[in-house]
Formats: sequence, structure tokens, C-alpha cells
Amino acid sequence: MLISAREAAEIRVSLGKYPAIDKSFNEARDYIDGVVRLKIDVPPPGEAGGYAHERHKQNYRDMQLAGMLFVITENDTYARFIRDMLFKYAEMYPGLGAHPLAHNQAPGKLFHQMLNETVWLVYTSMAYDCIYNWLKPEERKYIEENVFDQIIDWFIGPNAHEFDRIHNHGTWSVASIGLIGIALERDDLVEMALYGTDRSGKGGFLKQLDLLFSPDGYYMEGPYYIRYALRPFFIFAEALERNRPEIKIFEHRHKILKKAIYSALMTTFPNGVFPPINDASQTMDIRAAGPVFATTIGYFRYGVGDVNLLGVAKIQDQVLLNGAGLKLAQDMAKYDGDIPDFTWGSIEFSDGSDGEQGGLGILRTGQGLDQSMLLMKYGVHGEGHGHFDKLHFLFYDQGKEVIPDYGFARWINIEPKFGGRYLPENKSYAMQTIAHNTITVDQTTQNAFNRKEADAMSGKRHFFHIDNPDIQVMSARADDYYPGVKMQRTMFLVNEKRLPHPVIVDLYRINSKTAHLYDYPIHFNGQLITTNFEYTPDTTALMVLGNEFGYQHLWREAQADLQIENPSITWLNGNRYYTVLMNAKKGSKLFFTRIGANDPHFNLRSEPMFLLRIGAADHLFATVIEPHGYFNEAQEKSDGARPLLKEIEIIGHNDIATVVEIRGENEIFWQIIATNELSDPNAERTVRFNERSFSWTGDFNVLLEK
Amino acid sequence: MLISAREAAEIRVSLGKYPAIDKSFNEARDYIDGVVRLKIDVPPPGEAGGYAHERHKQNYRDMQLAGMLFVITENDTYARFIRDMLFKYAEMYPGLGAHPLAHNQAPGKLFHQMLNETVWLVYTSMAYDCIYNWLKPEERKYIEENVFDQIIDWFIGPNAHEFDRIHNHGTWSVASIGLIGIALERDDLVEMALYGTDRSGKGGFLKQLDLLFSPDGYYMEGPYYIRYALRPFFIFAEALERNRPEIKIFEHRHKILKKAIYSALMTTFPNGVFPPINDASQTMDIRAAGPVFATTIGYFRYGVGDVNLLGVAKIQDQVLLNGAGLKLAQDMAKYDGDIPDFTWGSIEFSDGSDGEQGGLGILRTGQGLDQSMLLMKYGVHGEGHGHFDKLHFLFYDQGKEVIPDYGFARWINIEPKFGGRYLPENKSYAMQTIAHNTITVDQTTQNAFNRKEADAMSGKRHFFHIDNPDIQVMSARADDYYPGVKMQRTMFLVNEKRLPHPVIVDLYRINSKTAHLYDYPIHFNGQLITTNFEYTPDTTALMVLGNEFGYQHLWREAQADLQIENPSITWLNGNRYYTVLMNAKKGSKLFFTRIGANDPHFNLRSEPMFLLRIGAADHLFATVIEPHGYFNEAQEKSDGARPLLKEIEIIGHNDIATVVEIRGENEIFWQIIATNELSDPNAERTVRFNERSFSWTGDFNVLLEK
Repeated sequence: MLISAREAAEIRVSLGKYPAIDKSFNEARDYIDGVVRLKIDVPPPGEAGGYAHERHKQNYRDMQLAGMLFVITENDTYARFIRDMLFKYAEMYPGLGAHPLAHNQAPGKLFHQMLNETVWLVYTSMAYDCIYNWLKPEERKYIEENVFDQIIDWFIGPNAHEFDRIHNHGTWSVASIGLIGIALERDDLVEMALYGTDRSGKGGFLKQLDLLFSPDGYYMEGPYYIRYALRPFFIFAEALERNRPEIKIFEHRHKILKKAIYSALMTTFPNGVFPPINDASQTMDIRAAGPVFATTIGYFRYGVGDVNLLGVAKIQDQVLLNGAGLKLAQDMAKYDGDIPDFTWGSIEFSDGSDGEQGGLGILRTGQGLDQSMLLMKYGVHGEGHGHFDKLHFLFYDQGKEVIPDYGFARWINIEPKFGGRYLPENKSYAMQTIAHNTITVDQTTQNAFNRKEADAMSGKRHFFHIDNPDIQVMSARADDYYPGVKMQRTMFLVNEKRLPHPVIVDLYRINSKTAHLYDYPIHFNGQLITTNFEYTPDTTALMVLGNEFGYQHLWREAQADLQIENPSITWLNGNRYYTVLMNAKKGSKLFFTRIGANDPHFNLRSEPMFLLRIGAADHLFATVIEPHGYFNEAQEKSDGARPLLKEIEIIGHNDIATVVEIRGENEIFWQIIATNELSDPNAERTVRFNERSFSWTGDFNVLLEK
Repeated sequence: MLISAREAAEIRVSLGKYPAIDKSFNEARDYIDGVVRLKIDVPPPGEAGGYAHERHKQNYRDMQLAGMLFVITENDTYARFIRDMLFKYAEMYPGLGAHPLAHNQAPGKLFHQMLNETVWLVYTSMAYDCIYNWLKPEERKYIEENVFDQIIDWFIGPNAHEFDRIHNHGTWSVASIGLIGIALERDDLVEMALYGTDRSGKGGFLKQLDLLFSPDGYYMEGPYYIRYALRPFFIFAEALERNRPEIKIFEHRHKILKKAIYSALMTTFPNGVFPPINDASQTMDIRAAGPVFATTIGYFRYGVGDVNLLGVAKIQDQVLLNGAGLKLAQDMAKYDGDIPDFTWGSIEFSDGSDGEQGGLGILRTGQGLDQSMLLMKYGVHGEGHGHFDKLHFLFYDQGKEVIPDYGFARWINIEPKFGGRYLPENKSYAMQTIAHNTITVDQTTQNAFNRKEADAMSGKRHFFHIDNPDIQVMSARADDYYPGVKMQRTMFLVNEKRLPHPVIVDLYRINSKTAHLYDYPIHFNGQLITTNFEYTPDTTALMVLGNEFGYQHLWREAQADLQIENPSITWLNGNRYYTVLMNAKKGSKLFFTRIGANDPHFNLRSEPMFLLRIGAADHLFATVIEPHGYFNEAQEKSDGARPLLKEIEIIGHNDIATVVEIRGENEIFWQIIATNELSDPNAERTVRFNERSFSWTGDFNVLLEK
């Protein structure tokens, strides 16, 4: 399925030569050698995250590893371990009914949700395939009748709707049935896995490949979920390629699986962590099982020689124990311990299965771990795990999120925190618009928090230009996420020789026929250092900022009635200062907040934010985000705690273009134009504001000198 | 002064052989080779932390490095650089008066405070000594008349009170005069440096050595300040040893300088960070200049062969460029890149120059970076930088402070934060008792925040036993820090085979003739996970916990009227859970708080705390702090989120002893006795509580089995 006798023989004679596969092999062997000495435990089903749940998860991982080791070493101990464990499952499984603790999910029998059971079957199929020929026919019969036939019936019988669903749960389900079909040499199951329970092609693996990814390979639920779905996609694809080569699965849809692994890896921060957009943790990274399987297989099938994939494998510090893993390890060994850190470039992904439903833009500058990364989100909602955050951005610098995404409100698998499941605050805060760095209108949430409505629309790509590495820009629209309100955000990432670090220029234009209150929020990581305006702090009592749509979770720490047009706020994070310089109308309001209100169980993290509130129908939020200076507490050094950029002036904005001018120390003067009308990189354009006329070609124009 | 011609020659022929000194030499040379190509800048005096201030600091560092390089390489470029810079100072210095921006401090001329100017003279003396023979007599005359004579007059004339002061400012002052005296071969200055301006011995270097350290070498201002004072102590001592060997400075007061460097290093956390007791940052570590000078010199004079010092030098990654540095580098090279992490053991330091003024206790368990460390503070107040925190403890685990000390309220050298100086919140919060992990009485501060009163008293050592590495214990008293209130704290660090990590047992006994409200606070780093009791959260408004003594900076986030006797609170930090299990009377109160109230400039950090409030005259706070379980968000693993210890019962406490019993899962039953009467490790003792009689020998007794 994943490893042939020839590959096993090659690995055997290669041991000791290639450190990456040696390490993975030795770790697996040392670990499994310990496991096989213990008593096998197949406990009755238990609650999510409890002992039995975790035991069954560990059991399938152990069986899969033992299977690979058996094929490679030909040592019967590993085969016996799998057989004996499957005998235990065979004793118990026929007596099980639907798990009683399912929460609005299709139930499994071993696990509270069927999803976990499909993962069990994916791994166990791999293990079973490894020992199939070693087993006696009567042993096979016993196991198949009491385990596999039962579980197959469960998946394609009462839970067929899950199987035919175009969703990561469906992917796991079809992959598990397809894999056990290959292991059992049951073509009917493989056909069903490929084309759906009715074999019509409306469901099944191929349809999932067609619908769950954009043509660029971007996964509509986002990076945190693709890292989970990579396993069924790549494991089943690899098994198909070996057993049903005529399908040419790795060619399917213009090599969509190549795009899938690359797009997953290319969304990551420079340290390999997936950006926590939509429901996601802030720490999931490329060392997870899915990216490891997919990197090894993807390298072999698509990427041989790609040094960035070697850099990924270096961080993963693990390869798959098959021929693909051997090839990867051989190529890693050529660098003799000196594989460069991977450096992904700027990239835009289209979203939606047709690629017409907006996208995700990533601007990067710098090399390896020193990269800065600006990400903007303007694609689909992403179904049940989607956040209401169109035109949200996040900024990564110094190896961390400086302007973060909160991620999900969940303490994953921590039993005392609501069983480790999603917390109520995931809906009441983390999914709401105000939890993100995008404008809220009238203190409500996009689509009024109606998921179906959100799923029915998408952001729109406007333009994305990265030819000049020093002036990169992306622009997108989100219309009618608030009825009658059109929003357009254009973000520049600018390297300028007089400034030590790349600077973000954010032009967020918003249009409506009627007046609204627009809140422009920046969630920041760090300690507030200074402002250039007076504010009124809430010193002896804190009140909540609002009553709903996430505002009820924000304490108001201070407020300002702005008397200046260019308010700026500076915070410190690590060794660097960050200043947000805004353009505001005199009399507009600014609030400092902190998460924590209406959080009776301390489920949320205490994090700061500020927002600029402006009442208007049409408005442009023009903002500069400048990293500057240096601070080192242990060395007691501080330089450049004040920003160099001092002023951002809005010259004008209309349906043709937006023009701003930025001034700073060292005689810095920038003029920045963003085209608002139809994107065309070659069009000659002119716009007039007041008495001034501006002409340029294409989608934008940046002058860094007068 | 610090390097002889012979040492220089040895280093020259050793280059390329010993990585540690190669690295320091190459870095210094590459850096200074860049500096000497630039225009020398000696600007007029400016404000603290501003350009001129930082320039003069960099100038003295550059001159000192250039001096060492000149002696080693004999390259005139370095000597010319120093001479030319001193010429610039000679042009400016005679025209300067007292700096106008001194804040309640003796002013310098180049710097706002004389302290910085003494540092300038210490470094510049070293540089001048290196080029003295190279200079022409008329050059010497010009520099000495216009710089050194002037500065000497300033220090021992109008600022003689600073010179004769027994304090780190005084140490810098006498060292600077002593060093320039040696450079200029002026015995009068060296005599004054040794014995005070009047040469009586009431002031001067030797008196500082006698009074500023306890007999164990513990520095009364604490670790953060000794790392600053190590430079004048060790640089002047080394210069004295080389020029006035008859003084036998390294033998003085039973080798007090050996004790000084060792005690400084032995207070550090396993990662080399100084514990932030008293005014201190949370990040100052052994890589600072003072520890680097003192480690090299101390290794050569006292510690040759001590592998722990090699481990220190490994973290410092720097040695002094002289014979001592060469020796250290040679010994480091013997380990061929594999120097073990240092592992300091448990240790108690006496405090006060007579060693009779309490102390500082540190219990440690584990090796290298995996050590856990429990520190209790029961010595002197420590003068102007002291905090009102007697019997305060902090706990370090997993490479960080888990139960932290807030440190100082200061954003050091960050100009927009009050010029980088101590903030008003340092007094209003950081110094107050409630900012620490020790009991407050009636919501006030020890000594009613009267520093003179605090300086006039001290904690009292009771006992300290570390013979059994699995049951370590320290006990101390603090009486009348609140009038009429006697406090005694006994802390155990227990390793028990049924528990995965060491556990703290804290028995804090408090006695008074009259009833008070006692607040027992635990500041914790991490996210609250769960409690075993009901509480009322403040969900829609936050109020301050009190009006003064630091309480005005605490938001109350929740409160509980306890209905159980063993409340427990669990939080998560990194990969580990921590549970504090307390003994409480039904009806006592518990508060959750967060720092941030009455902080109009966002000067404080937002950090959580909880406190148990009990009204009583005599009371025992009996508490267990248990690290447990494992969490890894990226791996989505969580085990053991609930503690194993469930109950702590107070059997009794009186002037003879305290007896508690602790129960937990896996049939854990511990009986713990702490002797309260006079310490005597050999005394046989008996105490009766209710109908039970307890007998033991010595200061404590711990039974871990029934």
C-alpha cells in the first residue's frame, strides 16, 4: 500500500547511511520494541480525551508503525503485535453500538465521533495491509468478519451521508473505505471510495479533490484544517497510485495534490507554524502528522530536488518509512547537515473550487526565519469553522505574530475546559468580526453572524503585485457583508532604505449610502509604550465596550476624543517597537480594550486591542504600521523608541483611486496611489483631487522621493 | 593593570587554538576595526538615555577594548584611537559644570549622574593604562591636566560623600579613583580608594568589602545589583593584586570576593537569569558585563577547574582578553564543545555584614536546565532598592518563573516611559507587599512602607536542611514587620516517586494577639484552567480590590465565599499544569485579580493573581503546590490536567510544631511536621494535638507512607 518489498529491501541495506531515515526508523523501532513488551489494551469505549479514547488512538498509531517495521525488518514480533491487537478488537467490536456521547456529530463505536473511527480505519488498514500475507487465512477471516466488515457496514450503511459529504470528514471516510478496500482486495469498496456510495461520481474521493480545493490548491477551511486532511488525501492517493495506477491520481485536476501540499506549506509562517485563521490553534505547525506524510509523498511524487521541501523536512525531523522517505533522506544527506531554512515567497491563492471566490494574499520580505509576513484574508467563509473576518489581516515579524489572529477559543483536549471541545466563547468571541483586524460596522458582525449567508458569498480579488520586492501590494473587496456597505482594502509592504524594517501601508476604503459607525481595530501583542494624544484611562472601574457580537468580551481600558488628525500608538514586542500611525477626523474616538469581560470561566486569553471609531457614510482608513528601534532589557539598551513616520494625509479617494501622502523624519515623503476601479496593470489613469491631478499606469503607484 | 606584556605575548601565540578566547578576540578586533575608521564623536552632555549619554557610554567601552587590543596586537592604530578620543575629552571637559538633569542624585559632568561618570573613569583608566607608555610625555600631561585631574577633583572634592558611601555608587567611585591612581602611579589616590578620603578606613574599598556582603558573600541589595557592582569589585581587585600584591586583596575577609562571585552565580535560575528580587528586571542574566569580568577573574584567582564556572562561561560566550581569559579558554577547550550545563545545588546565604540578619534560601532539584528552584527571601530590606516582601517566595520550573516576582516597575532606558527611569508604579505597586508571594496583614504593607523602619530590622533564619535531596526544607521568621504580628514560613520541596514532579509544601504560620485579615497571595504565570469551588465572576464591570498599598492596582476578576476546606486552583503554563491546594476555613474568601487598575499610562504588565483571605489572630496557611500532567497544543495532547493531591489537613500548630497531613490519589498519604521552636537538628521532640501524639527528632519530619 505504502511500501513494497523492494523498497523495504532498499531501506534495509541503506540503514546507517542517511541520518533522516535512520532517525525515523530507530525512533519507531525503539518505541515499538517497548510497546510490544507491554500488555495489549483494548478498553471499552470512553469519553473524548479520556483514557480509552487516547488508548485507541495510540493503538492505531502503534499498529501502523509496527506494520512498516514488519515489512522493513521481517521480524515476526511486529506482525504478531498487530494480529493480537486486532484479535482483541475482534472480540469487542461486534458487541458495540453507537457511542452514546456524540455531540451533534455522526457517532463512532470506539470513539464518540465517527471521524476518529475513520482515522482508526485509515491507520489500521495500512497495518493490516503490511501483515495480510503473513496472516493465516482463518486469522484473516476472524478479523475481517468481526472488525472490518462491521466497521465498513457502519460507515457506508447508517453513516453513508457522512461518506458522501464533501468535507474533511467525508475525505477521511472515503479514504478509510478505499484503503481497507485495497487491503482486502475488494474493488467494490475502492469504487465506492472513488465515486461515492452510489458510484455516480457525485460523492467520493475524486469529487472531494475537485471541490474542496481552489484551482491553486488552497483548502477552503484554511491551513489548520488542511494539515488534518492531508493524511487521507495523500495516503489514499499513494495507495491508489500503487494499486490503481490507471487512475493517475497524482495527475488529477492538473496535479491538484501537488498544489495542495505546496499551498499548505506556503501559507505557513517562517517558523513552520500555520497562521491561525478560522478555527485554529496558534501553534499547529508542519511537524504534525499530516504535513509529514504529505511532505514525504509530495517530495517523491512532485518535488524531487526542491530545497524548500528539504527545509520543511528538516523542521519536521521525520520522514515516512518507505521508498519516498528513503529518497527524501538521501537528498537531505547531500547537504551534510546544512540544509537552508526554507523561504517561501509572496503568493496569492484563489479560493473556491472554481477559483472565483476571492482568495488569500501573503506578502513576504526577508529570508528564512527573519522574514516578515503580511497576510490578508478575502476568500470564502469556510463553512462551520469559518470566522466572520473578511479583509482581516495579520502581521508576523521577529518570529512571532505581532498583530495576531486570536485563533479559536478552545483549550484543545484539556478535559476541565469543557472537555477540550470548542468553548462557547468560540462563537461569542473568536468567530466574531471584532476579534479580527478588520472593520466592524455599527458594532455588529459580518453577515450578522449568519453562517449560511456568509457561505453564500465571498471576498473579491482586486490586484496582487509582487514584481518589485520592495513595493509589494495586494488589494481586495468585500461587499455587502454588511448590507449596503462596500469595503476595499489595499495593503502595501514597503522596504525603504531610510527605514530599518519593512512598513505596512493600509488603505481601507468603505462606502455606503447611509452613515454608520466604523470601528477599525488593531489587536497587538506587546506592551503599550506611548501615544501622541491625550486619552482618558478607566482607572477605578472597567466597563464592557458593548453588549453583543464579541464586544461584550472587551473591557474598555481607555478612550480618547481625538483632537489631532494623525494619532499614533506605539507598543513594544520583543526587541522591536511598533507604531500604528492613523489618519482620523478630529472628534473621532479611539478605545483601548482588553479581552476578558463576560468570561465567567476564564476561557479567553487576556489580550489588548485598540480601535479607531469614525462615524461616516464613505470613509478611508489610512494607516501606516512601522516597526522601529531596538530594545534589549537584559542589555538595558533602547534605541529609536519613537517612529520615523509622522504624518499620513489623505489627498483623496473615489471610485477611480485613493491617494495618500506620508511624511516623516529624514525628509521622508511618500506618495501612494491605489487604483480602486477595475484592475488592469497596463491602463493609464488620471485622477483629480482638489486642484491636483495625478497620473499613473496600472493598479498602483508609489513614489518614495519627492 | 589587567594584562601584562607576557600575557599579551601568550595570547598572541595562542590565537587559533582556543575557541572561547578566539571568539572574544576576533569579535573585539572586528568591531573596533570598524570603530576606528569612523569619526570620533565626543558630544556635549545630554539627557539620560539620549544620544550623547549613549555615545559617552559607547566611547568608554570602545577605549577599553581598544586598549586590550593594543597590548595584544601592538598595533598603533588602537593606541591612536584612544589618544585622539582622550584629546577630544580634554578639549571639552574643563568647560563643563555639573550636569543640570540630575534627579536627586550626585551629578556628573558628562552624565546626569555621577555614577555613570565613575563607570566612565573605570573603563577609561583601563584604556589609559594600556597606552600610558606609548604616549609622549606632553600628550600625557595634556590629557591628565584636562581630563583626569579634573574628574578626580570632582569625585573627591564636592562629591566626596558619594566616594565614602558604603553603597554600590561608592564602590564605583573608589574603584575609579583607585584605578586611575594605579594608571597614573599616584599612591595617594590608591590609598584614598582603599581607605576613604580621610584614609581612616571608615570608607574605601576594604570597608565596602567588609560591609556590603554577608560573610557568605551575599550582596545586600540582591542579585540584580551585585551583577552591576561586580565590575568595580573585580576590576579594582585584579589591578590591586597586580600592583599592590602586599594587600592580598583576594584573601581579604576570608576570600570574600570568591564568595561574592559564587554567591552571585549561585542565586541564578538554571538558565543564568538573576531572580528578580528587589528592584530588578526579569531578564538580567550572567551574560552582563559584570558577571563576565568577574567569572574570568574569579575563575583564575579561585576557581581553576570548576566545571560549573566553565558552564557559566559557556552561556556568557565571552572571556576577558587577558591571561585569566586565556586560562579559562584553555580549560573550556578541553571539553571539545561539550561543557555540561552548570548545576548549582541548594544553598542558603546569610544576610547582613555580620551574617546575622536573616538570609536567602534556595532549594533546587533536577539537573541543568531541567532544574526546579524554590527561593525564599528572609534577609535585610536592601536599602533604596529593597522591596517590602519578607518571607516572599518564587518558584521556577520548566525554564521559567511559574510563580514569579514582578521585579521592578520600570521600562529601562525606554525614553517614552518616564525617561526609562523607575516609574511611579515602582513605589505604588512593585515594592508593596501585595506584589509578592507573602502574606499581607489588613491589606497593608510591611513596615507601612517605611524604608528606614524596614532597614532597621531583618528576617530570621530558622532552619535549612538539604541533606536528603528528596526532602529539602527551609524555614524562616519575620516578626513585627506588622506590629505585633509574628510570621514563620516553612517550605518543603518534596520528590515523591508517585508524583512526576517535585511538590512544594508551604506551612505559613502567623500569630498575633489581635485578629486581623490575612491575605495569602499567589501570583501565577499562565492560564487559569479550573477550580474545585464555585466563585462569582465579575463579568460586566471590574472594580479595584483596594485603595492603597498596591491593592489599588488590582482589578478584582472574581470572588468566592468558600464552602469547602480544601480549595484548589489549577493553571496551565507551557507544557505543565500547576495546582495550588489550600487549607481554608469555610466562609473565608478567595479573590482572583489582575494587575492594571489605576495605571493611566499602561506602565504595569497585565498579570493574574489569586489570594486567600482569612480573618484570624493565629492562623496556619497550609498549602501544596503541585506541578502535574502534560499539555502540548501543537500535538493536541493533554494528560493529567487534574492534580493527584486532593486534601491538606491541619492536625495542629503551636509554638512547638506544626503538623499537617496530605492525601491524594494512588493512596498517597503524607504526614509533615515542622518544628516551630528553637532549631536543633538533634533534639527529640513531642507534640500533642487533640488526642494524638507526635514524636520526632530535629527540625522536621516527613512521612511519605502510612
